[in-house]
Amino acid sequence: MRVLGVDPGTVAMGWGVIDDADRRLTYVAGGVLRARGPLAERLALVYEHAQRILSDFSPHCVSLEKTFVGENVQSAFRLGEARGAILVATAQAGVSVAEYSPAEIKVAVAGHGRAAKDQIQTMVARLLSLSGPLAGDEADALGAAICHLHTQAFTARVGEAEPLRARSARSSGRA
Amino acid sequence: MRVLGVDPGTVAMGWGVIDDADRRLTYVAGGVLRARGPLAERLALVYEHAQRILSDFSPHCVSLEKTFVGENVQSAFRLGEARGAILVATAQAGVSVAEYSPAEIKVAVAGHGRAAKDQIQTMVARLLSLSGPLAGDEADALGAAICHLHTQAFTARVGEAEPLRARSARSSGRA
Repeated sequence: MRVLGVDPGTVAMGWGVIDDADRRLTYVAGGVLRARGPLAERLALVYEHAQRILSDFSPHCVSLEKTFVGENVQSAFRLGEARGAILVATAQAGVSVAEYSPAEIKVAVAGHGRAAKDQIQTMVARLLSLSGPLAGDEADALGAAICHLHTQAFTARVGEAEPLRARSARSSGRA
Repeated sequence: MRVLGVDPGTVAMGWGVIDDADRRLTYVAGGVLRARGPLAERLALVYEHAQRILSDFSPHCVSLEKTFVGENVQSAFRLGEARGAILVATAQAGVSVAEYSPAEIKVAVAGHGRAAKDQIQTMVARLLSLSGPLAGDEADALGAAICHLHTQAFTARVGEAEPLRARSARSSGRA
């Protein structure tokens, strides 16, 4: 299972690819794209960068952070534009998308939903056995990927238990 | 001068192409794209549709309506995503972008900023000598194109007058 995590943005876009083999996470690649210039050109760069990453690493899924934008409609616009560029590239590559809130990602990475930004950077580096500092945007992207892999592992375990629970529900329905 | 007007949206995207030869507006083409299915696929459709329109009609400029989304951050997100898909296609085609508020478009089309939606539809059809009803989303897109052409014509006239005004400003500066 290979997941591409993305932290969308039109100024800086973080990304990171993680492999999960038997619940062992391996860092494959990652980075931060910094775009300058007019908005439409930055968006084209984001799109083309996402397209290249998808073709270079062929992930099974893209995991996005639903970044918190509060009440700021302009920030939501800008973030939506970056998401649009990434989602177009994702759909064209035929890859599915999962989304997680910052709190969900923090729980998956650091064990609680109020972890600070530097804690996330430290924990992501530790979980992936990376030495040296990790850029904040890349750490957020890798955090989204880790969150998806945890959620998938959890869903798989629930899936294994499902037939038993379904049987008991049916028999109680007949009682 | 040929302008493509776009009313962005991930459910319905209006578009319309107008030629301006000596301040005479001619309708070239237009329509509404309705997209169904998952968000990422709708966005890919919006991107590919925009790409095809840009290549079929080779406009000099794209004019977008800055749609009012009020306080709704989710609407801003969704609208931003559609704008992102369109702006990527526009930048890749090397076409410049202009943006106008709904009020600016209403003034250009109907003469005042509080015109109702059906007035815009009627006025756009009249300005372009179109008979029959015009879909709301297409009328909004054509309105954005008309607004850009009016603004350009105005800027051109101001530009013609500019040397005179600049001279008088310089001479008064010396006085």
